[in-house]
Amino acid sequence: MSEPRSEKTDQDAWLPEAADESYGLPLDIVYAVQDALEAGETAVVRGLIEDLHSADLADLLESLGGDERKALVHALGNEIDTEALSYLDESVLNDIIEELEPKNLAKSLSELDSDDAVEVLEELDEDVRHRIISALPQAYRALIEESLTFPENSAGRLMQRELAVVPTTWTVGETIDFMRASDQLPDDFYDLYIVDPKHNPVGWVPVSRVLRTRRPVDLTEIMEEDMKTIMVDMDQEDVAYVFRQYGLYSAPVLDNAGRLVGTITLDDVVHIIDEEAEEDIMKLGGVSETDIFSDLKDTAKARGSWLVVNLITAIIASAVIGLFEATIEQIVALAVLMPIVASMGGNAGTQTLTVAVRAIAMKDLSAANAKRFIGKEVLVGVINGVLFAVLAGAVAWLWFGSQAIGVIIGAAMIINMIVAGLSGTLIPLSLERFGVDPAVASSVLRSTSE
Amino acid sequence: MSEPRSEKTDQDAWLPEAADESYGLPLDIVYAVQDALEAGETAVVRGLIEDLHSADLADLLESLGGDERKALVHALGNEIDTEALSYLDESVLNDIIEELEPKNLAKSLSELDSDDAVEVLEELDEDVRHRIISALPQAYRALIEESLTFPENSAGRLMQRELAVVPTTWTVGETIDFMRASDQLPDDFYDLYIVDPKHNPVGWVPVSRVLRTRRPVDLTEIMEEDMKTIMVDMDQEDVAYVFRQYGLYSAPVLDNAGRLVGTITLDDVVHIIDEEAEEDIMKLGGVSETDIFSDLKDTAKARGSWLVVNLITAIIASAVIGLFEATIEQIVALAVLMPIVASMGGNAGTQTLTVAVRAIAMKDLSAANAKRFIGKEVLVGVINGVLFAVLAGAVAWLWFGSQAIGVIIGAAMIINMIVAGLSGTLIPLSLERFGVDPAVASSVLRSTSE
Repeated sequence: MSEPRSEKTDQDAWLPEAADESYGLPLDIVYAVQDALEAGETAVVRGLIEDLHSADLADLLESLGGDERKALVHALGNEIDTEALSYLDESVLNDIIEELEPKNLAKSLSELDSDDAVEVLEELDEDVRHRIISALPQAYRALIEESLTFPENSAGRLMQRELAVVPTTWTVGETIDFMRASDQLPDDFYDLYIVDPKHNPVGWVPVSRVLRTRRPVDLTEIMEEDMKTIMVDMDQEDVAYVFRQYGLYSAPVLDNAGRLVGTITLDDVVHIIDEEAEEDIMKLGGVSETDIFSDLKDTAKARGSWLVVNLITAIIASAVIGLFEATIEQIVALAVLMPIVASMGGNAGTQTLTVAVRAIAMKDLSAANAKRFIGKEVLVGVINGVLFAVLAGAVAWLWFGSQAIGVIIGAAMIINMIVAGLSGTLIPLSLERFGVDPAVASSVLRSTSE
Repeated sequence: MSEPRSEKTDQDAWLPEAADESYGLPLDIVYAVQDALEAGETAVVRGLIEDLHSADLADLLESLGGDERKALVHALGNEIDTEALSYLDESVLNDIIEELEPKNLAKSLSELDSDDAVEVLEELDEDVRHRIISALPQAYRALIEESLTFPENSAGRLMQRELAVVPTTWTVGETIDFMRASDQLPDDFYDLYIVDPKHNPVGWVPVSRVLRTRRPVDLTEIMEEDMKTIMVDMDQEDVAYVFRQYGLYSAPVLDNAGRLVGTITLDDVVHIIDEEAEEDIMKLGGVSETDIFSDLKDTAKARGSWLVVNLITAIIASAVIGLFEATIEQIVALAVLMPIVASMGGNAGTQTLTVAVRAIAMKDLSAANAKRFIGKEVLVGVINGVLFAVLAGAVAWLWFGSQAIGVIIGAAMIINMIVAGLSGTLIPLSLERFGVDPAVASSVLRSTSE
């Protein structure tokens, strides 16, 4: 048996610590759970995780290795806090679902709000999802199946169906009485929607304003009419943009007839913002999104396929250098020096590209300022190109004692830096124009410049 | 005079379009404003921007060139919608502030909530900030100056001072009566805090729950006691973590004596999440955060300094190759082939690094799973290393007809890929441990591998 891991040892001193120990999953809980699992002490395991917040339990599951994960689920009697599932990364979730009883899972899922249950279900592999949906209670199953008919990543998948809605004719007093009597309302809500007889929203009131207004006042007198509405088929990225742009807390979701069918709240949008940022960063690095939780085989395969592209282009680049092999003296100098130029171009291109991709994602770069942006990038390329051409050219001249080589290296540097600036902007802008995520541009650019 | 830009021309067809034309700043408004500014038609400019949301006005200012920006501010009589200022990027904000009358600006700032005013003020250059603060009304000035005493990027800077607070002894009815009578409350609020006589918070109630409960019920009966509190000196990155981890809408901020001093809401946190993601992405690309809005000189300078580092390391790498210049035949082959190995290592390293940096930022990678993560990365390096060693070694052998060169290239490939996996994990983990942002690791890694 290995030594207990209940304390962080000295040799772990270089590992990152939680920035604030009072939040998140404590490290000693992870070690204690690992020890208890290894010793097969089921009761100890249950005791350790009893008081964990669902989000921390999800982190624990993500921190454990595949076998420990399964052992933990078994220790919990093949059941698990359903809310924790909604916090799990896709690949870990699918790992765990296999260990759970579909019937038990369906039962506990049906206790969640519809949008949270959809969030879990849509991440599952298709056959598992079907098995669980068919085990759901009848009415709830219909609701879930309807939600899943909306396109993936659309507002319809995100929205909560339970709504606080009142007619235009009511006073504050009538509203409060209705709220106190009704059991059809969501647990907690922040904004109240006011709809006309066709169920089209005409305004909204923050709940605090209802509370602070005297009973006889009409709701239409205190409502806000300036309302940013979301169409049910809107892409989640656009939903995030609208929330961010206008600082919204919640927004009404409309169907194609303009009827109010649901509401999206800021907490759903935070998930999306994180997802989108993650996607951009991972694509810029040439790795897949779920990389950190994927198993060894999948990771090596996914990264290898990108490295194949890189190998081919690198060989082509070398072959071009190899063409001049006849003039052997000169070529040694150039072969030694050209990687410098290529590396500089690659870095300059990545710099431009990073700015462009992020700016497009944040909608800071659009047709309105694209030409100015490109112009600036090319000029930066010219300025830095000339600067580094002089520098690298001089080094080359002194090193190999040939003015010609210095000039060639200098010229190559200038051209390379300008091309880097141009391609770092034009490639992502064009990709965006043709509906391709500009973050993939990093692959294109790297394979031509490195 | 140039031709009117009021319509998108055919040659602009490759530029990105807004994904959903019904939101955000319409492109024809940008063109129309530019035309009106050029023609000096002040009234037309004012008419065009009259109905714009503050966020869209900020986007307009960011889309315009430096001179157009100033012309727009002049057309508005050196005054500007103060809320729009809070949406502006730092460098654009400082550009515009110079054109505004400090007195007018101070007056309109004092109409904002304290946290929004602080958000604008803390982005200003120091001398400008002092000038504006001294023009603020006395009481408001004290509040602002107190907020600015909290460290930058701390919870104290983010929090809103205006609070909805009630004592533990009150009933729902007493609370509603107080809310209706008081004019000390924030405009709108979502959660109500319940404090003991020492002003320590003991629980919270969502406003909707107050509304739905009958008047005689005690607040302590309906309040939630499970409360994630934020310390006033907590770093904003940790604040974002707590909100994200536990799906919070708002959280109470406490001073060192545990007294409730403010509240942070999810909309403030969304800004931080965006900022942090932006920072990570920009650092990974070796560029500064405000790059897209910086002027040409600053951009070229900032990027150039990083390229200097790259140039030095690239020259060192070449010099090492140059050392073997004597064995001229062999060296041609190696000089031609080595960039391939270096490029593969650089890419593999960037892949690992990207995953590690993002995982650390999202707290998915911690001491709890660091060893497993490193082990996996090294194994991925071994697997892909062997694979590409065979491939590249075979190519080298066939190309140059020398088995020895094939073996050297193969061995170099394996070593390089393993080192890439190790350094891609160890560098960011160690940086995080010593309190340095791991995203800067990309510079270190790139300069050693490219």
